[in-house]
Amino acid sequence: MVFNQNSKTIGIGLIGSGFMGKAHALAFRSVGGVFPVFAQPRLEILADRTAEMADIAAIALGFARSTADWQALVSDPAVDVVSITTPNSQHAPMALAALAAGKHVYCEKPLSTSLQDAKAMRDAAQRAGLVTVVGFNYLRNPMIHTIRDIIEHGEIGDIIGFTGHYVAGFMGQREGSYSWRMHPDEAGGALADIGSHLISMSRFLLGDITEVIASLDTIYPTRTSADGQEHTVDIDDQVAILARYRNRPFTATLDISWIATGREMGLSFEITGTKGAVKFTQERLNEVQIFKANQPSNRSGFTTLTAGPAYSPYGAFCPGPGHQLGFNDLKTIEVKGLIDAIEGTAPSPTSFAEAFETAVVMEAVKHSSVERRWVQVSDFS
Amino acid sequence: MVFNQNSKTIGIGLIGSGFMGKAHALAFRSVGGVFPVFAQPRLEILADRTAEMADIAAIALGFARSTADWQALVSDPAVDVVSITTPNSQHAPMALAALAAGKHVYCEKPLSTSLQDAKAMRDAAQRAGLVTVVGFNYLRNPMIHTIRDIIEHGEIGDIIGFTGHYVAGFMGQREGSYSWRMHPDEAGGALADIGSHLISMSRFLLGDITEVIASLDTIYPTRTSADGQEHTVDIDDQVAILARYRNRPFTATLDISWIATGREMGLSFEITGTKGAVKFTQERLNEVQIFKANQPSNRSGFTTLTAGPAYSPYGAFCPGPGHQLGFNDLKTIEVKGLIDAIEGTAPSPTSFAEAFETAVVMEAVKHSSVERRWVQVSDFS
Amino acid sequence: MVFNQNSKTIGIGLIGSGFMGKAHALAFRSVGGVFPVFAQPRLEILADRTAEMADIAAIALGFARSTADWQALVSDPAVDVVSITTPNSQHAPMALAALAAGKHVYCEKPLSTSLQDAKAMRDAAQRAGLVTVVGFNYLRNPMIHTIRDIIEHGEIGDIIGFTGHYVAGFMGQREGSYSWRMHPDEAGGALADIGSHLISMSRFLLGDITEVIASLDTIYPTRTSADGQEHTVDIDDQVAILARYRNRPFTATLDISWIATGREMGLSFEITGTKGAVKFTQERLNEVQIFKANQPSNRSGFTTLTAGPAYSPYGAFCPGPGHQLGFNDLKTIEVKGLIDAIEGTAPSPTSFAEAFETAVVMEAVKHSSVERRWVQVSDFS
Amino acid sequence: MVFNQNSKTIGIGLIGSGFMGKAHALAFRSVGGVFPVFAQPRLEILADRTAEMADIAAIALGFARSTADWQALVSDPAVDVVSITTPNSQHAPMALAALAAGKHVYCEKPLSTSLQDAKAMRDAAQRAGLVTVVGFNYLRNPMIHTIRDIIEHGEIGDIIGFTGHYVAGFMGQREGSYSWRMHPDEAGGALADIGSHLISMSRFLLGDITEVIASLDTIYPTRTSADGQEHTVDIDDQVAILARYRNRPFTATLDISWIATGREMGLSFEITGTKGAVKFTQERLNEVQIFKANQPSNRSGFTTLTAGPAYSPYGAFCPGPGHQLGFNDLKTIEVKGLIDAIEGTAPSPTSFAEAFETAVVMEAVKHSSVERRWVQVSDFS
Repeated sequence: MVFNQNSKTIGIGLIGSGFMGKAHALAFRSVGGVFPVFAQPRLEILADRTAEMADIAAIALGFARSTADWQALVSDPAVDVVSITTPNSQHAPMALAALAAGKHVYCEKPLSTSLQDAKAMRDAAQRAGLVTVVGFNYLRNPMIHTIRDIIEHGEIGDIIGFTGHYVAGFMGQREGSYSWRMHPDEAGGALADIGSHLISMSRFLLGDITEVIASLDTIYPTRTSADGQEHTVDIDDQVAILARYRNRPFTATLDISWIATGREMGLSFEITGTKGAVKFTQERLNEVQIFKANQPSNRSGFTTLTAGPAYSPYGAFCPGPGHQLGFNDLKTIEVKGLIDAIEGTAPSPTSFAEAFETAVVMEAVKHSSVERRWVQVSDFS
Repeated sequence: MVFNQNSKTIGIGLIGSGFMGKAHALAFRSVGGVFPVFAQPRLEILADRTAEMADIAAIALGFARSTADWQALVSDPAVDVVSITTPNSQHAPMALAALAAGKHVYCEKPLSTSLQDAKAMRDAAQRAGLVTVVGFNYLRNPMIHTIRDIIEHGEIGDIIGFTGHYVAGFMGQREGSYSWRMHPDEAGGALADIGSHLISMSRFLLGDITEVIASLDTIYPTRTSADGQEHTVDIDDQVAILARYRNRPFTATLDISWIATGREMGLSFEITGTKGAVKFTQERLNEVQIFKANQPSNRSGFTTLTAGPAYSPYGAFCPGPGHQLGFNDLKTIEVKGLIDAIEGTAPSPTSFAEAFETAVVMEAVKHSSVERRWVQVSDFS
Repeated sequence: MVFNQNSKTIGIGLIGSGFMGKAHALAFRSVGGVFPVFAQPRLEILADRTAEMADIAAIALGFARSTADWQALVSDPAVDVVSITTPNSQHAPMALAALAAGKHVYCEKPLSTSLQDAKAMRDAAQRAGLVTVVGFNYLRNPMIHTIRDIIEHGEIGDIIGFTGHYVAGFMGQREGSYSWRMHPDEAGGALADIGSHLISMSRFLLGDITEVIASLDTIYPTRTSADGQEHTVDIDDQVAILARYRNRPFTATLDISWIATGREMGLSFEITGTKGAVKFTQERLNEVQIFKANQPSNRSGFTTLTAGPAYSPYGAFCPGPGHQLGFNDLKTIEVKGLIDAIEGTAPSPTSFAEAFETAVVMEAVKHSSVERRWVQVSDFS
Repeated sequence: MVFNQNSKTIGIGLIGSGFMGKAHALAFRSVGGVFPVFAQPRLEILADRTAEMADIAAIALGFARSTADWQALVSDPAVDVVSITTPNSQHAPMALAALAAGKHVYCEKPLSTSLQDAKAMRDAAQRAGLVTVVGFNYLRNPMIHTIRDIIEHGEIGDIIGFTGHYVAGFMGQREGSYSWRMHPDEAGGALADIGSHLISMSRFLLGDITEVIASLDTIYPTRTSADGQEHTVDIDDQVAILARYRNRPFTATLDISWIATGREMGLSFEITGTKGAVKFTQERLNEVQIFKANQPSNRSGFTTLTAGPAYSPYGAFCPGPGHQLGFNDLKTIEVKGLIDAIEGTAPSPTSFAEAFETAVVMEAVKHSSVERRWVQVSDFS
C-alpha cells in the first residue's frame, strides 16, 4: 500500500538555529515516528541572522526553505507554528508578530527580558486564542510527571519541605566569557537563564509562590570578551532565595548559579512530605528517589525508580525499561504537547500565561534583592 | 532559498516493526538532522507479518509504502538498505536475500541462530562487497569509545582484569512467559539474546577471546504460555563464563541472565589496568568511572566522567554537557555509521564479519558448558 | 615486662548516660589504644538522675563509682574532666560549676539554651584557663579536615558558593513525640539541636557569618505525648537561612529540619570555588567528592576520595584504606583532641569560645525570623 | 556506689601487634562498654617478635605485660583467650599450642597455609571443647545478617544468582612489594588473603559450595623487594571462579584480586532471587540495596537500607540511625560473639570447623586451576 504521508501536516517556521534551534528541529522530525499525531510537522522555513547562516542551517536540519527575514517567515502562509529560539530579548517582538499573524508560537524560555513584555505576550496569546508553548522542557520528563502524581495523590503526605538547585558551570570562566548574555536588556543573568527553569519546576510541582526574599550576587563584576577586553558586568551570577508557597507551611530554599564549577546540569531538588520524600537530579534524568514512611523500619529507605514503560510516555520511545531517555527526547515530548494543543485534545504543556507567572516570581525575586526585604509576589502580577 | 532536500537519498526497506523496528525508523528519521550525511534516508517500504500490521506500522513510522511480502521489499529497486528487525531465526534468509539483491543490510543482533548461518552471512557479505551493520548499539555510545581510547592509549596501563555482566529481569516470570523466544531454533536464550551484546562489547574493548569455560543454566525448565499451558524449555536463562583473551594475562568473568529480578538494563563492566581502572553501567549510559594511579594518595579516587561535547559525537545531539543521550540516540549514531560506510568514508561500525566472531565465541561457550571443559574458541571459527 | 598502666591518668566524671553519655564513655575507653596519649582516661564517676540509673550505667560503661549528685561529681578530687551529656538546659549550670571547681569540661552541643548562658560559659572558661571542648564531633572527621585543607590551600580557588543542609527525620512523628525537647527553655528546636552542627561546620570551613535572614517554621504546632495528650509546641521544626560570610562574595543557603521524613543523618553540603568544588554528606562520612577545574575536558569530573591512612588520623584506627570509620571513631578523635589540649600540645578542637560564636549566629538567625529582616550577627556578640 | 569492675574478667593474650593485633586490642577494650558481657576482657600479655616490639605495643595497646616468647604467653595461667594475629603460616602451631594449653583461641583468617594444618586445627578444637573464633569480621556486619535473614525468610524468593568480588589494589605495585606474603608456604596469595573472606561470606549466605572451576593467575611473575632486588613469585594475584552450591540451581562467579588498581575494599556481591535481589559492597558497609518484586511497576526499584538501630546490634553502638558503624566496630561485634561463646550462650560466630570448610573450598579452587577442570569440593574435605 502507498501512503500520502502529507495528508495532514503542520508547517513549521523556525527562527534561530543554535542549541535550541536544532533541538526544536530534531523534535519536529522525530515526533511523528514516536507518537501518533493528528498531523505531521512539515519543516517549512528556517530564519537566521544572515541568509548564509539560514541556508546552512536549513540544509543541515532539513527545512525546505530559508530566509534572513524573520518577519517574512512569520507572515508566510505555509507556516502554522513559529518556533522562536533567538536571544531572549527578541522573544517578545517575534512572538507578538507571530500571534498577530495568527500563528501558534513555540518559544524558548525565559518568556522575555522584561515583565512588561511577558505580560504583553500573555495578553496577546489570550486574545488570539492560539496555542503558545514555552520551552520548559525539563517539565516534560515522565519522571517529573510521576513526582507530581506522587505529590497530588498524597503518596508522601502533606508537603513540608522543598529545596531546589539549578547550578551549572557554563559561565564560570571570567576570561573570554563576556557576550550579549551579559547585558541585562539582552538576556538576563543566571536567574533568567536557568533560574526560570527552577522556578517553573517548583511551580509545576508545588503551585504558586507567594513571597520571596533573595540575594542576587554578581561574583564576577568584570569579564573579558574573546578579544581580551575587560567589560563591567552587572547581572547576577548566583541567586539565593527563600520562598513561600500558597497554602504550604514551609519556607523553601532555591539556589541558582551559572558559575558552579564542575556542575554540568545541576537542576535538582528534594521534596519532603509528612509521609515520604522525593529526590531528583536532572544529571540522572531517568531516575527518581522516593521514600515512603509506611515501611517496616528494617526494610525502609529511598527507592530508586528508573524510567521505563511504566512511566508514560517513555514507552513511546522504547518498550524496554532502563534504556534511558535523553535530553532531545524531552523536546520531542514537548512538541507532542504542542501538536495535541493545536489539535485541541490537551492544554498547552506550558503556555505564555503560565510562563508569565514564572516571570512574575522572577521580578519579585529581583526586587527583594535590591530592597533587601521579603516581597509579595502578587505585587507584580 | 528553496532546497531540494531529496537531491541525494538512500531508500530504506524495514522488515519488522517491534521494539527494534521502531528504533531503526526513529534513527533513520533523525540522523540527517543530527549529523551531516552525504544522503538522507528515505523511508521507502515497511514489511510486516500481515498487510494490516504493515499498514499500521508504515503510517506510524512514516514509511511511504507497506507490504506483507518481505521478499518483494528486498528486491524493490527503490530500496538501497534492508533493515532486518525480525525474530532471530529469520535474520539469515532475509539478509542473504538482501545481499543477493545487491542491498546493504542493517541487521539486528544476534546475527543468526546457528553458527553455519552466521558464517554464510559473513561470506555472502564479503562476496557482495556491500555494507553490513549489526545492531550492537551499545558500542556506539561515545562513553564506550572513550573507554576504548583510554585502553588503547595506555591511560590505565596494561589491562589485567575484566568482569562483565549483562543481567536483566525481562524473562524473570515463569508464568505467561513462554513464547517463540523459548525455541532454541527460533531465538536462543539469554546467551544469544543479551550475552551477544556483552561478548561483542568485550571484544570491542579487549580484542579476541581465545578460550572459555562456561555453564549455561536453565533455571526455569518449564514455563507457561499466556494461555496457562505448561511448556518444557531447554534454553539457557543464565550463563556464567570464564574467558581468556589473546595476549592478555588475566581470566575474565562474564555473567549473563535474563531472569535477574530487579535489573532493567544491567550491561555493566569493570576493567582494571596496571595504572588505573574503569567502570561502566548501561543503566547510567552517560557516565564512566575512571581511576588513574598517578594521583597523590590523598586526592585519588574514581572520577565520574559525564557525557558532553568533549565526547564525540555527543555534541551533534546537544552542545550542553550533562544533558544526556538516550537509547535512541545510540541507534542514530549507529545509522550515521551505516551511512558513512555506504559513502565509503568509514568502515562499518559492526560488520557481519565482526558479528560472526561474536557468534563463534558463543558457540565455544555453549560447547564448553555441554562438555564441561575449557574450549578453544579457534576450534569454531 | 610488666607495665604500670596507670602511671599517668586523667580522671573522668561523666554526667548523663544516654546517647552521648555512652558515646563519651566509649571514646574514653578507646582513645588510649588508638592514639598515643600522655595520660590514659580513668573512668572515675558517672552521675545520672537517680542512683539506680547511675549504678546501672556505671556498670555498663565501666565507671568505678556512681552518684545521683552531679555536684558531688564536679567537686570530686579524683575527677579531672567533667563530661556533660545532659539536656541542653543543664549544660550551663554544670559547666560553670565544673569550671569553678577547676575541672576541664567536655560538653555536648549546643553550648546552652540561651545566649547569656553561652556568654557566661565562654567567659568562665576564659577566666579559669581550663580546657573546654564542645561536642561538634562531625568536625573531627578526617575528611572534613581534608576539605578545610583544600579550601585553605586554594585548591578549588576562591570560594564562591556554599549550600548546606542538616535534615533528619527523627522528630517527624507528630504522635507521641512531645517531650522536654519541645520546651524552648529546655532544649530548643531543630536550630539548636542540629542546626548548631551545620552552623559550626560552615564556620569551621568558611569562617565568620556576618549577616543572616531566616525563617523558623513550626510545622507541627501541636504534638501528642506518649500518653496521647495534645500539647502546643512553639519551637522550630525547620529553618531556612540565607547567610553571608566575612570577606566572601556569595550568599549561602542553609536548610535545617528534624522532620525530614526518610533522612537519617542528612548533614551535607556543597562548596563551590572558582577552580573546583567539593561535596560531602555525613551519611557517607568516609567519602568526599572533589572537582578540580584544571583537568582536560574529556577526563574531568567529580572524584570520590575515600577515607584511608592518607587522611590523618584515619591510620591510627586502621592501616587499610577503605575500611571505614564509624560515628564513635569521630568521638574518639574528639577525646584525643581534649587530651592533647589538656597536655597543652594543641588547642581545643572546639572550645566554649568557638561554640559561643555559633550560639551568636543562632541568636541572629532567630531574630531575623521574628523580625523578618536581614540581621547583622555582630549585633549579638 | 563503688564497683569492683574486675569481679569477672577474661584474660587476653595477644600474639602480634600489626593491623589485626591492634584491631583485636581495640575490640577487647571497647566490647564491655558497648555490650553487656558476662566478663570483661583483661589485657594480660602481648607477645611480639622481639621484646622491644612487644614492650612498645603492650604500652600502646594497654596490655599489662609483654613478652617475646609466645609459648610463654600460651601457657600463662592468667591467659584465658589467645588472640593470634601473626603471619598465616604461624596460625597452626600457635593455635594448636593454645588449645593444648586449654585456652580459647581467636585466630585471624585464613585458618592456615595448608589444608592439613587446617584439619589439625579443626580436630584439635573439637577434641578440646574450647571456643575457637576465626576473624571473618565482615560477616559480623548487621547488614550482612540482614541479608541472610532476607534470604532465609524467602523475602527474595529462591536464590537464582550470586556474583561476588573481593578486589583491592594493595598489592598492585610490582616495585618494592616483594615480602613474606609472596611465599606460598608463608601466607598464600590473593585467594588465601582475601579470597577466604569472599568464600566464607558466600558460605554464610548461601551454604555449601559443591563444585568449582577456577583460574589462579600470577600477573606479576616477578616483584622487587624494598631493596630493589628482583624475586620470582609464584602465587596468585587474581582468581576467577565458577562455583556451584548445594541445592542451588545457578552457577556463581567469584572474582578475587589484590592488584585491582583503585579499589580499596572491594568486597561486594549481588544476590538474585526469584522474587527480589540484594546488592552489597563493603566500601559502603552501612548500606544494602534490596529489590522486591511485589511492588507496583511504577513504584518499584532498589531500596537503600541504611544501618541503624533497626539492625541489631547497631543500637548497642549508637541509637541514632545513619550515624554509621566503622570497621573496628565489626571487630567489637566479633569479640562480643567470642565472649558469648565462652559464656556458652551462643555458638562461635565462625569456629575452626567452619573456617576449615572455607579452606576446603580454597583447596578445591587451587586444584581446579592446576588441573583445568571442574573439581568436587567434597574430594578435599
